[in-house]
Amino acid sequence: MTSQKTAGAAELHARMRQTAPLVQCITNYVAMNVAANVLLAAGASPAMVHAEEEAGEFARIAGALTVNIGTLSPGWVGGMKTAIAGAMAAGRPWVLDPVAHFATGYRRRVAAELLALRPTVVRGNASEIIALDGGVSAGQGADAGDPVEQAEEAARRLSRAHGAVVAVTGPVDFVTDGRRAARISGGSALMPKVTALGCSLTCLVGAFTAVAPDAPFEATVAALATFAAAGEAADQGAGGPGSFAVRFLDALHGLDSQALEVGERIRPA
Amino acid sequence: MTSQKTAGAAELHARMRQTAPLVQCITNYVAMNVAANVLLAAGASPAMVHAEEEAGEFARIAGALTVNIGTLSPGWVGGMKTAIAGAMAAGRPWVLDPVAHFATGYRRRVAAELLALRPTVVRGNASEIIALDGGVSAGQGADAGDPVEQAEEAARRLSRAHGAVVAVTGPVDFVTDGRRAARISGGSALMPKVTALGCSLTCLVGAFTAVAPDAPFEATVAALATFAAAGEAADQGAGGPGSFAVRFLDALHGLDSQALEVGERIRPA
Amino acid sequence: MTSQKTAGAAELHARMRQTAPLVQCITNYVAMNVAANVLLAAGASPAMVHAEEEAGEFARIAGALTVNIGTLSPGWVGGMKTAIAGAMAAGRPWVLDPVAHFATGYRRRVAAELLALRPTVVRGNASEIIALDGGVSAGQGADAGDPVEQAEEAARRLSRAHGAVVAVTGPVDFVTDGRRAARISGGSALMPKVTALGCSLTCLVGAFTAVAPDAPFEATVAALATFAAAGEAADQGAGGPGSFAVRFLDALHGLDSQALEVGERIRPA
Repeated sequence: MTSQKTAGAAELHARMRQTAPLVQCITNYVAMNVAANVLLAAGASPAMVHAEEEAGEFARIAGALTVNIGTLSPGWVGGMKTAIAGAMAAGRPWVLDPVAHFATGYRRRVAAELLALRPTVVRGNASEIIALDGGVSAGQGADAGDPVEQAEEAARRLSRAHGAVVAVTGPVDFVTDGRRAARISGGSALMPKVTALGCSLTCLVGAFTAVAPDAPFEATVAALATFAAAGEAADQGAGGPGSFAVRFLDALHGLDSQALEVGERIRPA
Repeated sequence: MTSQKTAGAAELHARMRQTAPLVQCITNYVAMNVAANVLLAAGASPAMVHAEEEAGEFARIAGALTVNIGTLSPGWVGGMKTAIAGAMAAGRPWVLDPVAHFATGYRRRVAAELLALRPTVVRGNASEIIALDGGVSAGQGADAGDPVEQAEEAARRLSRAHGAVVAVTGPVDFVTDGRRAARISGGSALMPKVTALGCSLTCLVGAFTAVAPDAPFEATVAALATFAAAGEAADQGAGGPGSFAVRFLDALHGLDSQALEVGERIRPA
Repeated sequence: MTSQKTAGAAELHARMRQTAPLVQCITNYVAMNVAANVLLAAGASPAMVHAEEEAGEFARIAGALTVNIGTLSPGWVGGMKTAIAGAMAAGRPWVLDPVAHFATGYRRRVAAELLALRPTVVRGNASEIIALDGGVSAGQGADAGDPVEQAEEAARRLSRAHGAVVAVTGPVDFVTDGRRAARISGGSALMPKVTALGCSLTCLVGAFTAVAPDAPFEATVAALATFAAAGEAADQGAGGPGSFAVRFLDALHGLDSQALEVGERIRPA
């Protein structure tokens, strides 16, 4: 445990790639394909299993679970809760992605119910994290309407209130476990122009928590650093969001673990 | 209003990009990811919100709604109708895409019910428009079996009967509001070899109607011209449908508004 | 019939491309978009129609049906069974893809029920075929955990027990109708790093059985050879799974029928 708690991003990345953890992703229809490709390219093994009839049983064999409310409907919420119960019963970490939870009453209620089930990690954009903390955000749909800096205090409060690691992603990401905090730099201005990359990052956070279940803060930092490094590499030579998305998968696949800790990518906050 | 009614494609494109309208897309499972990427690349903000529990509430905050019956099931039809009611109550335009509605009795019934709810715009391929007008088309599945020219009279009749702008898309598109009509040229022979581009175009029509709610004819023409111009640009250097799809997103992202009115792209019909 | 039974892969590929068969694909949410693109690029016409309300009616007009249990839920199983009944009543071939059927009790039961409906072809990875034969596989999720060679005897037994052609796909594919067998070489080490290619191959097998309904063994061999040849071509110059996926669609689209029988691609086993 002690060694895991101090594992760096490079070490966790190498461990993730070596063990190819099975990650159960309950994510939205828009994200499923790209999230699966992101996990495969990064080195994990994705499994999209959502139905109430099997989601809980599967969560017991997966290394981690991720839950995303992007395209919500009642049948899926049942599967999400069953999967969360299964993951928790097996001592597995799970990650919540509260996509645009502020947009409708139904979505707000479901997000609140899931948050009450104590996720290991919550990942959202600034608008989502501000609203989850009870604040008023500028967000309308799935795209962020607020800068990351404005969500930092909300993230710290959410983290302490729910015992979860909270990640706010954007041009520079912010991660906190309520006690420690870090900022992660990199990525590309084209990332918000490709749909479902945030949702896919949530799944990748799951993959890293699967190989460091006792160190969710470090795992989240490592996942975000992986995305930031691959995004930065993919940006070089991209002609727009189409070619960026292609290059991003190539970059995730070819990523050198050591590149995650180069320069100022990860800084304490 | 008058100024909107005479706004050209270039002006509407610039306005759409500047305001990044929130567009609620209820579309099929095949199209969701590509439609979201098309809207992001073009400059709009897509939101895939379909459940009856929230679709109507969300339609009130979105700038426009699009409804596509590609992968139909009863639960989704409820969400479609709720969303349409929400959009109409809020005075928002909505666009219908009656994918392969002639293929089964269930699909025909649902398409007829949705058409009766008075969409602002209907977009389909020639086979779909001919059959929607009660004619016999050569279509079987989602791919067109008839030339666009053969659907022009059906489009005019449909438009007058339902008070909707009707767009027939193909190698050369045809758009009419029952009174005026236009043809739009461009695109690429590879477009029918990439799935869900027609469905994505329907969502883009939604984005343009969101910024010109009182000028749906001009908005539809501008959306089709955007697709035609990007398709033409993407065709250059494409090695097949895979690289075409990538280049198409890049081209949408890099498109110069002025390019929409160059040469013979848009002609009165 | 005799001529169909002895048709080679090149001839079947040319026939498939010439007739563009309509293939009804009931596949999972992850695979829908890529499977549709694979079929369009290869020359077929995909239709994703799954609801119980129309799946059976549509199966009567499609040339073949494919059923994949990747993202399973009760509503979909009803549609699968209705579609299978429709296809069989119309004398159409249908293909079963038992994705990760061993992972949960629910999935095992559904796979067993579908297998009992006598598919024309079963396609899976080695872990899936071994487990379907009652053996113990190393698989957990959708990724194979066993080598193809280890599944050959299971494939032969399954084929004889169920009267189906059985295909085990991997680095070298194995196909048998219980009497004859073949191995197909080619592809790329990047293929398992792109999600849903196996699911898409199942749909392509459907397209080939549609043009050779009385020769499902030859049709399956031809579909696998098509994938292997396109995968091999796409591997050249690919920088990772992202660019591979793009190049793969281009290669399917540009494939020369004669290339399918070149060298040692297809060997009797």
